[in-house]
Amino acid sequence: MSVDINISPRELRLLARKGEFVEPTSGYCPGYAQANLIILPKEEAYDFLLFAQRNPKACPLLEVTDVGSRMTKFTATDCDIATDFPKYRIYRDGVLTEEVTDISEYWQDDFVAFIIGCSFSFESEMIDAGIEIRHNTEGRNVPMYMTGIDCVPAGKFSGKMVVSMRPINPKQLVKTVTVTAQLPKVHGSPIHIGDPAQIGIKDINKPEFGDAVTINPGEVPVFWPCGVTPQSIVMNVKPKLAITHAPGYMLVLDVKNVDLKE
Amino acid sequence: MSVDINISPRELRLLARKGEFVEPTSGYCPGYAQANLIILPKEEAYDFLLFAQRNPKACPLLEVTDVGSRMTKFTATDCDIATDFPKYRIYRDGVLTEEVTDISEYWQDDFVAFIIGCSFSFESEMIDAGIEIRHNTEGRNVPMYMTGIDCVPAGKFSGKMVVSMRPINPKQLVKTVTVTAQLPKVHGSPIHIGDPAQIGIKDINKPEFGDAVTINPGEVPVFWPCGVTPQSIVMNVKPKLAITHAPGYMLVLDVKNVDLKE
Repeated sequence: MSVDINISPRELRLLARKGEFVEPTSGYCPGYAQANLIILPKEEAYDFLLFAQRNPKACPLLEVTDVGSRMTKFTATDCDIATDFPKYRIYRDGVLTEEVTDISEYWQDDFVAFIIGCSFSFESEMIDAGIEIRHNTEGRNVPMYMTGIDCVPAGKFSGKMVVSMRPINPKQLVKTVTVTAQLPKVHGSPIHIGDPAQIGIKDINKPEFGDAVTINPGEVPVFWPCGVTPQSIVMNVKPKLAITHAPGYMLVLDVKNVDLKE
Repeated sequence: MSVDINISPRELRLLARKGEFVEPTSGYCPGYAQANLIILPKEEAYDFLLFAQRNPKACPLLEVTDVGSRMTKFTATDCDIATDFPKYRIYRDGVLTEEVTDISEYWQDDFVAFIIGCSFSFESEMIDAGIEIRHNTEGRNVPMYMTGIDCVPAGKFSGKMVVSMRPINPKQLVKTVTVTAQLPKVHGSPIHIGDPAQIGIKDINKPEFGDAVTINPGEVPVFWPCGVTPQSIVMNVKPKLAITHAPGYMLVLDVKNVDLKE
């Protein structure tokens, strides 16, 4: 699809709302923050809010909606959470049952939406710093992996962390850390540099979410905590109903990265 | 009382537990983070957790305890929340009714404790940077003021922000901002520099909490969001029961400032 990557966040959300943009959002709207999603009924919202507080690297909260509200109040204007992500996942009893582009029909008055920072946000800053984003270059979704890293449990929620990976030239490792560390609200600095096995990743060529990308000889895989972690938690804890975004298909916010540095 | 300021956090907590240390903690245990407190019944904990998420400058959460637990799990070991602050305040229907040094008798099985970062934490870093902390020099509690700044409401909780103030030499303003900005989890950068009236402070010589300090000619008052803000919220919203620390009488944690910079 030929959408200009410099489209405004609002225009991209409107395209997604109309079902006319259904692809990964990496690379779009450079400079603007992007977000993950998990929606839970109010009954489970306290435990998840506490889970996010205890796992801020994986689940940095940018906004939590009022109970039942479909609209964001702080991070974007005219933004309907039920339509403006390009793609959603419905999990029932911890099992992914449907992928849809609109969750209006699923909406409940007791839903609370957790809008969680996404590492796509800092990719434009990495590019500005001269660092290649391989999945952009190759036109793929970012590779995301289940790890052996235990999240800190909270109430009923527990499970393993999901990470995203970008292959980095060793000469740019320091720059990669310093540039991303400036944006803790969209995951910030990496959680691991190097050997995937050390964090329990089984096969670097078979990501559990997204697509594999080329790792050139000499490049080092660098891993960031990922906002798909709630989906790993949902698969582990099996709540009756949870709705998330589809990995890589993010909400682009009106908030700029620079606003998140304060 | 002659307690060495370089006492370990654990030893200071043990003195507080025995009722042998009942004074403001500013200056003690340099390099270690200090914390504010608000305790609410579980019924009100979701709204307050959301309030903290929406007001991270005033209420940066360092730890939220499991329901009914008196012990911290993440920020200090062998730390009893009901005894280890030097002084507590009991608020009933929004009114301060008692000040005590031990809340064991008040403890309920449905209590959730919110451990909130305190600006005392970064004072040792300011001192290392050559910046005088006036209330330390003068042996007083830090001055804290009610402001006209509205917090972002969440559920039942709303009200005005409380700030702490330190008079700063204009030549050290930039250093003051950069040093404190590195520690967002203990309030971070100032919220205002200069004219107190601009943030609704009525009389700089009459702080609502703590003690007034000398502002020398040419010095600029600098204001930080303060973890006494929950007490302003409690006075506004009037929950049936809330327990807080007494302003300035903080919990010293085992967590170091340097751990909070990650």
